[in-house]
Amino acid sequence: MSAQVWNHLTKTVSKQLDVVPHEAFAGFTNQVLENNTIFVVGAGRSGLVGKFFAMRLMHLGKSAHIVGETTTPGIGRDNLLVCISGSGNTASIVNASKTALKNGARVTTITANRESNLGALSNSLVLLPKSEEVDSCGRYVPDRNSSENELNIMPMGTLFELSALIFLESVIAEIIMECCVQEVEMKQRHTNLE
Amino acid sequence: MSAQVWNHLTKTVSKQLDVVPHEAFAGFTNQVLENNTIFVVGAGRSGLVGKFFAMRLMHLGKSAHIVGETTTPGIGRDNLLVCISGSGNTASIVNASKTALKNGARVTTITANRESNLGALSNSLVLLPKSEEVDSCGRYVPDRNSSENELNIMPMGTLFELSALIFLESVIAEIIMECCVQEVEMKQRHTNLE
Amino acid sequence: MSAQVWNHLTKTVSKQLDVVPHEAFAGFTNQVLENNTIFVVGAGRSGLVGKFFAMRLMHLGKSAHIVGETTTPGIGRDNLLVCISGSGNTASIVNASKTALKNGARVTTITANRESNLGALSNSLVLLPKSEEVDSCGRYVPDRNSSENELNIMPMGTLFELSALIFLESVIAEIIMECCVQEVEMKQRHTNLE
Amino acid sequence: MSAQVWNHLTKTVSKQLDVVPHEAFAGFTNQVLENNTIFVVGAGRSGLVGKFFAMRLMHLGKSAHIVGETTTPGIGRDNLLVCISGSGNTASIVNASKTALKNGARVTTITANRESNLGALSNSLVLLPKSEEVDSCGRYVPDRNSSENELNIMPMGTLFELSALIFLESVIAEIIMECCVQEVEMKQRHTNLE
Repeated sequence: MSAQVWNHLTKTVSKQLDVVPHEAFAGFTNQVLENNTIFVVGAGRSGLVGKFFAMRLMHLGKSAHIVGETTTPGIGRDNLLVCISGSGNTASIVNASKTALKNGARVTTITANRESNLGALSNSLVLLPKSEEVDSCGRYVPDRNSSENELNIMPMGTLFELSALIFLESVIAEIIMECCVQEVEMKQRHTNLE
Repeated sequence: MSAQVWNHLTKTVSKQLDVVPHEAFAGFTNQVLENNTIFVVGAGRSGLVGKFFAMRLMHLGKSAHIVGETTTPGIGRDNLLVCISGSGNTASIVNASKTALKNGARVTTITANRESNLGALSNSLVLLPKSEEVDSCGRYVPDRNSSENELNIMPMGTLFELSALIFLESVIAEIIMECCVQEVEMKQRHTNLE
Repeated sequence: MSAQVWNHLTKTVSKQLDVVPHEAFAGFTNQVLENNTIFVVGAGRSGLVGKFFAMRLMHLGKSAHIVGETTTPGIGRDNLLVCISGSGNTASIVNASKTALKNGARVTTITANRESNLGALSNSLVLLPKSEEVDSCGRYVPDRNSSENELNIMPMGTLFELSALIFLESVIAEIIMECCVQEVEMKQRHTNLE
Repeated sequence: MSAQVWNHLTKTVSKQLDVVPHEAFAGFTNQVLENNTIFVVGAGRSGLVGKFFAMRLMHLGKSAHIVGETTTPGIGRDNLLVCISGSGNTASIVNASKTALKNGARVTTITANRESNLGALSNSLVLLPKSEEVDSCGRYVPDRNSSENELNIMPMGTLFELSALIFLESVIAEIIMECCVQEVEMKQRHTNLE
């Protein structure tokens, strides 16, 4: 039934994230804390994950920019570029990273593929496990259908995207706790024009 | 530690969703199955949730459109409008719903507020619990800080947004199982130009 | 032939703009010069016109934001909201204007309709002529087709949108001349990540 | 005065476009007429030009998609990719073109640079003159300032972007005339949800 489905999704995401060492989380969070101007880039649904994160960074008082939006300025020295790419090889993101590095920015990447262009280029990585390395990951096995184990209910990048999203929401939570950020402060920075 | 944070987030989301009756999930899923042209609307991070969903609808072979994107056509008879709004009162979404109804479309809303304009207007509702009605919801209680219960680590609409996202990912999972959709089919419809 | 078509378009736009008094242009330009934080809002193709303008404002060193983009903050005192709406009645823009005024911002609107909600609400207006008031506006009369005068080759909001765009490009040109802005300065602020 | 500025802009654009041979215009228009599924790609303000065009293609009954928007499907055989790139070398657009060709689509590019990657790759080109080849192009010479000829009031890609926009608006006008498209038909396809 429905509860089985969503509990499967959230548990699979948690299990996936539990493989990430605390140091990777703490290191990523510290970089966000230390940089006041942060650019975020991703393609497709990973790009949407980046937008979830960037909006909260703005609420926390950062100067946050989405690569590709209208008024995003150039990246420069002392800026941070956060890349979100399961494959680590999305061409437009690899190009953005090279430019960022050339301009003196730091690049940190959330990926499921260490052996990738972004894995090689980035100053630091958060490595999420690949879907196929997580036991039965994304493959829900209901008894109503004998061919069920050929169905992937977390198709394509779903597991990576949801894991990256919850990872980044956890980073926001950590910053709220470390800096004692009150919700009312964040609300004051929220858009009032939607 | 970090694992505590993300496990708190995913468990809070699951607990929130477990309040949703199976009938609401099944009813919503059926509407999606029965409509070939589906429009999705939301503001801010709820809008991003809608984009996550709409991309997968396209992968499933639906004609899916985001309200506000460049080539989105007019809505008409036999179309479905999916609204995502925690408050149920976002003005632009209320207006879109009125227009949809006037043009013979059906409107279904995911909201945390039954007593809202969208609650009154919509043909059907998926009602997620309000944050404050879920015990300790979004309020993580670490022992490192005595004022901790005043901090909200799922600030603003976070709980609604993540719950709506996992709800909609579960709808996609359910459709994959009911219709035996193979991942390879979905991949063939995915953009190859990013 | 083709040259006839584009010369018709550009001449129609120029003729349309020549009705705008110099004072309206100078007043609008001064407001832009006097405000460092500028929000821009429009729907559909008028929204695209706004994005053309906002990117150049960023290049000129302004803090420029598009209403609806991910990291756009709240509007406040001493900010300027530029609305672009042919009808002057687009609901989402009318709402944004009310909020802006309530928060102490100034609202200036480019419209073709003085007798509109935005016409009534705004602190200042740039009024472009309505299509039907410009002689033969948007109606190109080739001799190859006897029913040609029923065809509108600048359909829907085309004339308003192109006129608003050229008006705003002229405002940018004027600021470049008044402030002696060198192109190299603008290029340095341009995104380097696309 | 203001009228001088906008008349300078529109005349410069017209002069620029008059260099384009009628055959290039007719060839481009025919490709659009012959393809029912059309993808449009551009970066920055050229991307906005593409969105202006794609919305009108949808109004004309085409299945039109912006590369990078949420529900854009994969490109395939019998589809057309329209690229808009002044430099002809924007990496993400070059990549999109290669993929389009590999999948059996046709690629047509509007550019100011024949000696570019897109110039080499594309099945057909519309070549707009480079700014520096047009006499005094973009350089408005008012008498109020002795260093005026060092100021560029059509900075960066302005001339290319406005010329590409008016070119594409002329293509829409031509299709309206050739196919006798009534405005009311276009309006019926326009979004009713904004």
